[in-house]
Amino acid sequence: MENINLVSLALQFKLTTENNKIKTELKLLDQTLLPQQEKWITIETTNQMIEAIKKLQVRGAPLIGVAASLQLAQEAALEFNISDLIIKAQALYQARPTAVNLMNCIDRLQILLSEKVTQTDFIKAAISLFNEDVQLCQSIAKNGEGLINDGDSILTHCNTGGLATAGVGTALGIILKAHQSGKKIHVYVDETRPLLQGARLTAWELQKHGVPCTLMTDNMAAQLMSLGKINKVFVGSDRIAANGDFANKIGTYSVAVNSHYHKIPFYVAAPFTTVDPLCTEGKNIPIEQRSSVEVTGAQGFFGNVQWAPSNINVYNPSFDVTPAHLTTAWIMDRGVFTKENILKGCFS
Amino acid sequence: MENINLVSLALQFKLTTENNKIKTELKLLDQTLLPQQEKWITIETTNQMIEAIKKLQVRGAPLIGVAASLQLAQEAALEFNISDLIIKAQALYQARPTAVNLMNCIDRLQILLSEKVTQTDFIKAAISLFNEDVQLCQSIAKNGEGLINDGDSILTHCNTGGLATAGVGTALGIILKAHQSGKKIHVYVDETRPLLQGARLTAWELQKHGVPCTLMTDNMAAQLMSLGKINKVFVGSDRIAANGDFANKIGTYSVAVNSHYHKIPFYVAAPFTTVDPLCTEGKNIPIEQRSSVEVTGAQGFFGNVQWAPSNINVYNPSFDVTPAHLTTAWIMDRGVFTKENILKGCFS
Repeated sequence: MENINLVSLALQFKLTTENNKIKTELKLLDQTLLPQQEKWITIETTNQMIEAIKKLQVRGAPLIGVAASLQLAQEAALEFNISDLIIKAQALYQARPTAVNLMNCIDRLQILLSEKVTQTDFIKAAISLFNEDVQLCQSIAKNGEGLINDGDSILTHCNTGGLATAGVGTALGIILKAHQSGKKIHVYVDETRPLLQGARLTAWELQKHGVPCTLMTDNMAAQLMSLGKINKVFVGSDRIAANGDFANKIGTYSVAVNSHYHKIPFYVAAPFTTVDPLCTEGKNIPIEQRSSVEVTGAQGFFGNVQWAPSNINVYNPSFDVTPAHLTTAWIMDRGVFTKENILKGCFS
Repeated sequence: MENINLVSLALQFKLTTENNKIKTELKLLDQTLLPQQEKWITIETTNQMIEAIKKLQVRGAPLIGVAASLQLAQEAALEFNISDLIIKAQALYQARPTAVNLMNCIDRLQILLSEKVTQTDFIKAAISLFNEDVQLCQSIAKNGEGLINDGDSILTHCNTGGLATAGVGTALGIILKAHQSGKKIHVYVDETRPLLQGARLTAWELQKHGVPCTLMTDNMAAQLMSLGKINKVFVGSDRIAANGDFANKIGTYSVAVNSHYHKIPFYVAAPFTTVDPLCTEGKNIPIEQRSSVEVTGAQGFFGNVQWAPSNINVYNPSFDVTPAHLTTAWIMDRGVFTKENILKGCFS
């Protein structure tokens, strides 16, 4: 096999062949430490990857699909044992329940395993998912950028940029492309409680790219809308049902309702790998419930604090579902889709 | 003067007379330390009180009005110098710009000063504002309690209980009365970023009273509404305009829009001292902007953490304005008012 060197904002993968032995190295930028520290962790085993996904050291629906696939490439390079790879693929499949990109990637690799693929072809297929995601991001950014005008003031929620994908991102990729094409825009960033992906990651990415932006708490967006200070909303998605309903980071639905009330266009951006055609509607998307400590305080490289009383009941769904009727358009790699397109079955 | 001993959940005031000399003691429960520590601080000077108000060691629109009044009583007991008291009253008046109860209380005491009131009558008048607030809270709770049914699942935002008033509270006072009258209710508590009054204070008060409750981040309320898990909303207010628009803790407006969209009754509870008849509509209410460090991290007795990148722009209004048309009813000490009552000029 030829040598391979993949580099994205949050993932690095190297493959070299020496004396017919394939060597790999897989590194993740530990996103729990951002923005205070940029530390790369080396992933050697599938259990380490599952742990990294669960702890959100690697996150973003497209990126965890790519990262899990590269871990399978790494396992295959070490020892190409198909039944063992199937067991490891199954374990990765279950690391997070909502993001469908992970399952899509694993499914595609599992089909190859069932078809008795060769070691080299399996590794190449796993690696190709990285480059595919880079391409998907570019297509999404290209398709969505025309929806942003000079002077726009844009709200985004959670993180959907280079930290969430192998490429430039989905919703944030569109925003970055608009900025890079010279449009004067301002981005309002929801902090995205409880895990603060907006405050920690999106703010960091926008600063890195020099995009004018303002951070605020999630509950301030509605007031800004009422003051006419937000005129477009772009968010990502972890799973899109066949009817256009979609799951995304908790808080997205509230933004959608507020956008609808204030008549502000509300766009979701995602690669086609986020569509789950077998899921007929949003209510069938499984929603991950996470630990109460995420809500009773905040934890990260910045410290570990608890502000709520001990033993308080907590509700902590990681995602919510936004119905198709609150969505203005679906910006995908294959084009910009409307409700009419979806009714005609483009996601089925 | 007779000896006086006032005690509420968050304020203690003692007055004794010895050898014709009036002695006072004013203590505040430092709310920035809750729920980790219950520490009382002694306030001796007007500057200390202004500092305590600005730092939110004492907070809640009705309570800061009462606390500022008792500080003036304390100053009057020390030395009854009318022109000096007017200067101190003016300084207290400006401690926080949005809550009108503070200004109402000070205005009432200033009128007495301009009318050449006696020392004893001035102190009695200031002290009477404490007892008045206790009565106002009881009337609000009585008027609002009938709106809560057995089995209700209620959302509240920020803190409007015994920590925000001299009495049982406003919105939370109604909820507590419903619980104490034996109705089975469940309360969902918005954590209320950035200063976490819900997570720290409301959760603490509800636990203290044994009311079943669940804490969540602000951006989760909409999802619970869409799942049919919230059927009433009760919030407080810091200022009500003559047309019924009202200012309350940032995030309230988002809850109002979401309640409207999900057809959930949305009630505001406040004493008549919160009405500003000279303020014709919500957009005339001044909104306090606070420090960016409140949004880039979290600070309190629990610790001091920063999770956002340094030098990030921040938007941090302390309040937002909910328009009258999103409000189902105004629960006041004088009764429950509807939009029709307000159109007839009941707040003017």
